[in-house]
Amino acid sequence: MGYKSREIRLVSRPKGEPGTECFDLIEKELPDPQAGQVLVRNQFISVDPYMRGRMNDVKSYVPPFQLNEAMTGGAVGTVIKSAEPTLPEGTAVLSMYGWREAYVSPANGLQVVDGTKAPLSAYLGVLGVTGMTAWVGLFGIASLRDGETVFVSGGAGAVGSIVCQLARMHGCKVLASAGSADKVSFLKDQLKVDYVFDYRDGEPLDHLKAGAPDGIDVFFDNIGGPQLEAALWHMRNFGRMALCGAIAGYNTPVPGPRNLAMAIARRLTLRGFIVSDHYSELPTFLKEAVPALQQGKLLNQETVVNGLENAPTAFLGLLKPGDAHIGKLVIKVS
Amino acid sequence: MGYKSREIRLVSRPKGEPGTECFDLIEKELPDPQAGQVLVRNQFISVDPYMRGRMNDVKSYVPPFQLNEAMTGGAVGTVIKSAEPTLPEGTAVLSMYGWREAYVSPANGLQVVDGTKAPLSAYLGVLGVTGMTAWVGLFGIASLRDGETVFVSGGAGAVGSIVCQLARMHGCKVLASAGSADKVSFLKDQLKVDYVFDYRDGEPLDHLKAGAPDGIDVFFDNIGGPQLEAALWHMRNFGRMALCGAIAGYNTPVPGPRNLAMAIARRLTLRGFIVSDHYSELPTFLKEAVPALQQGKLLNQETVVNGLENAPTAFLGLLKPGDAHIGKLVIKVS
Repeated sequence: MGYKSREIRLVSRPKGEPGTECFDLIEKELPDPQAGQVLVRNQFISVDPYMRGRMNDVKSYVPPFQLNEAMTGGAVGTVIKSAEPTLPEGTAVLSMYGWREAYVSPANGLQVVDGTKAPLSAYLGVLGVTGMTAWVGLFGIASLRDGETVFVSGGAGAVGSIVCQLARMHGCKVLASAGSADKVSFLKDQLKVDYVFDYRDGEPLDHLKAGAPDGIDVFFDNIGGPQLEAALWHMRNFGRMALCGAIAGYNTPVPGPRNLAMAIARRLTLRGFIVSDHYSELPTFLKEAVPALQQGKLLNQETVVNGLENAPTAFLGLLKPGDAHIGKLVIKVS
Repeated sequence: MGYKSREIRLVSRPKGEPGTECFDLIEKELPDPQAGQVLVRNQFISVDPYMRGRMNDVKSYVPPFQLNEAMTGGAVGTVIKSAEPTLPEGTAVLSMYGWREAYVSPANGLQVVDGTKAPLSAYLGVLGVTGMTAWVGLFGIASLRDGETVFVSGGAGAVGSIVCQLARMHGCKVLASAGSADKVSFLKDQLKVDYVFDYRDGEPLDHLKAGAPDGIDVFFDNIGGPQLEAALWHMRNFGRMALCGAIAGYNTPVPGPRNLAMAIARRLTLRGFIVSDHYSELPTFLKEAVPALQQGKLLNQETVVNGLENAPTAFLGLLKPGDAHIGKLVIKVS
């Protein structure tokens, strides 16, 4: 018997800032799972800034989304019908099937997760690709050492909020920027970040000088643009930059940093990275993250939006300066 | 008895493009060397792009030149009067005393060099700081591996011409840019560079695509500006950039690269460096460079300008697009 599932498809590619006209919500009937397959009902789907790049028809590190197909991405749910003994009904699984309420998949495309250790949504956030991104960037890419001074742009975002916490757990002084008063409060009050500023309030460089008079050792960049330029002015000798995102320029081009030659004078290393190159280190990451989460040292801050139909609007908001989401944005679909 | 020496002093700091009015040539009488000191007559002095930065009154990796004092920098010469038994008359020495015909110094500020292994001027070029810069950048900073594809901006310059040769000695495919027809010919005919272009002739990116259809593994940058932006577009995954100089912006600001986010998609590493951090590796470098020079595998290409009084004009020319100097620029002062 068929099972009805709604999904959101990309139906046109944006020029500049995308709108809801790029997406369509359709309903389809899923077949019964065949031998070796399972039917999964998603509980949460992930909405991430990197998806903006995949909307363009440009070869990048991940291939572009296909037109007239569902938006792919991280999703967690539960097996509700199984034709595969290793994944009985009730098993919680993580997939990359993205923006749909349910799907049928062979078992080998799915990763079993343990819903007793953490809420399922955490496997999209702090215990998933998001947390892994923060951890790889800080330690693998920027070689953060205990006690250093770290600046995080977009500190209240999904990745940024974990960067702040991991750096503080390692005895670092943390500076973070954000784009709303609520985010600034969140970083100050809940994450205990040492110096927080609204990037729209004054010159970023003045804030960096105020918050880190002796300069910055590590810059974790989610934003690019003027904040990257300010960081270049204020790095210490032999500083490291983990280039994770550049959301300031995703919809409209921004000027490049005019002071990249500071990298010579200060002997800086700027290194871009993509978390999927580092998935083999996931067990090492989880060894640190799971106990930290269970002991309350690491907060899985998330914003939950209800209903698959609201995913496009939530996603488009994420790309706008001053958007309201704090931490990881997930859509609850059932 | 006094010994007369002329020297060139910095007498004013430039705003934007410097002119000869920044310099003055004066003559002074040197005292006799005291116990432990020697009187050295310079034979060659070094003229380098990095000196432009020191003309500004801005703290950088080296302190600014002092006003009304001689321009400091690399110089090689011969002891002509000695009050220090370990440095008898006739000893060839390298110093950082810069733009003067002669000087008196304690022995411990000087490095003895062997004029039988190579002409003295080579200790300012291929066997000195210049050669070391090329070697450190390629192997220490950019981790060049045999057989990779390398792009060198400013390939006919002092450092660039050695980068081209070292990369070719390691079986690499080399692309280089230069700013005159003579330099292009030099790179093609004498250094056997695989693909050479005049950076003023068409779009640098088109040249990179033509010369390296599969992309670039290592970019050694002496220039910055549009060539750096073009390189960012054309790097291969996990490519490395050694940021050595940014001469395009030394006199007037240039826009920053608008595509630095390519570093994320392609997982690039950009690393600035200064050769003086790596002086301890000089013996390792010389172990490779001296035999290569003696066997004719490595060419000490230099442009010699005669007369201390011509140092300022030669230096100012070095900073201009399309200047005529090929290889290392040295001034013969005696």
